Amino acid sequence: MNIILLDKNETNSDGSAKIDGRRFLHISKVLKSKIGDSIRIGVIDGLCGTGTISEICDNSIIFKTEFSKAAPSPLPITLLLALPRPKAFRRTLETAVTMGVKRIFVLNSSNVEKSYWDSPFLTPEALRERMLLGLEQAGDTIIPQLTLCRSFETLINDNLKDIIKDSTAVIAGPSEVNESQPKPNGQITLCVGPDRGFTAYEQKRFIESGFVQYSLGSRTLRVEQAVPALIGRLSAE
Amino acid sequence: MNIILLDKNETNSDGSAKIDGRRFLHISKVLKSKIGDSIRIGVIDGLCGTGTISEICDNSIIFKTEFSKAAPSPLPITLLLALPRPKAFRRTLETAVTMGVKRIFVLNSSNVEKSYWDSPFLTPEALRERMLLGLEQAGDTIIPQLTLCRSFETLINDNLKDIIKDSTAVIAGPSEVNESQPKPNGQITLCVGPDRGFTAYEQKRFIESGFVQYSLGSRTLRVEQAVPALIGRLSAE
Repeated sequence: MNIILLDKNETNSDGSAKIDGRRFLHISKVLKSKIGDSIRIGVIDGLCGTGTISEICDNSIIFKTEFSKAAPSPLPITLLLALPRPKAFRRTLETAVTMGVKRIFVLNSSNVEKSYWDSPFLTPEALRERMLLGLEQAGDTIIPQLTLCRSFETLINDNLKDIIKDSTAVIAGPSEVNESQPKPNGQITLCVGPDRGFTAYEQKRFIESGFVQYSLGSRTLRVEQAVPALIGRLSAE
Repeated sequence: MNIILLDKNETNSDGSAKIDGRRFLHISKVLKSKIGDSIRIGVIDGLCGTGTISEICDNSIIFKTEFSKAAPSPLPITLLLALPRPKAFRRTLETAVTMGVKRIFVLNSSNVEKSYWDSPFLTPEALRERMLLGLEQAGDTIIPQLTLCRSFETLINDNLKDIIKDSTAVIAGPSEVNESQPKPNGQITLCVGPDRGFTAYEQKRFIESGFVQYSLGSRTLRVEQAVPALIGRLSAE
């Protein structure tokens, strides 16, 4: 937790805030902060700043807030992610959020197991919690926009054109051929398939919709490895 | 498992091989291969090739081997990794191996919990098994050279000069400053500290030894996120 995130309604009119639970435990047990110490804080979907601890109770902490700084810049990357197995999804989502992706579409594929869509990790509460963990790691405050797209055809036919508008759209996958890679800059839409890859039909639909192949080489990475590697590569200036 | 890896002594003089256990289960249950089917195979620390299944028994499979292809190219990256908590280490190691890193040094820092060094994941057998999983994912055969360096001072004083010889040595960490990053090419030595970062003293020792700062931005990534992101970035042509 590299920032203590507050809901908008947790800041009082006098500029103080009181927190308990997981955040209290982090400040008291991990940071071992004392009265007068400063902690890094932020308002969810708002500014970052500093909290100065004024009171430490048994189960809560009160601090004065001062907000002065914008959240770190978002990455100009939209992520289209075929739903991985739920545990890998959780980790991958958190990583994408930590790295600064602000628009995420989770999509279906014939190679996504149907049962994955029933995972308790996909409830709005669980998704929000996971994204908050990603923001806390990054020191960020802005919750990404996340959309679950259970129908592949609806996504492709009705939504994809708008999603990729004004961006370079790339679809990732291993490639034996050592061809030169597109060097996208500006807004990028990055599509990452399931561990087993998209089907040939699905792949074709993306290419027809304007995506170009993008590869990190001949090695087949798992989704949770590929996503940070690709974001790391594509976010280079 | 994107390649079936064989020990050198598993190939018979007539070119056939018999496998059981985890690899047998993968071929029979996941790939659902039949007699006559081809599977991707490789000899550990040797060539890649094709196996043609000639016999399927209750608990084993026999196939004819043909080796014709070199393993995928290694990455020109040496990884120096401060030991993360054991579960994260396992994942990070597997990712680095899958991505093609062939020289890995695991090191100590004041910010590495001492107990991590007693983890059963650090036995030679566990390390080898984890690296084989990484190779199986990548379709690679060459086991990386992995060295555990329990003494920070010994590493810095006695080994570091040789390790970074003829390479650009970079030490990763978040940076608020949006300065231009070194663009290393050729051989690279990449040093990644603990989640809490190296101490100021340790950082100084690396800089004095010839490392330059390298940053993906102001966001603090966890080690297991930073390693694939950095390798993805640094392995760009």
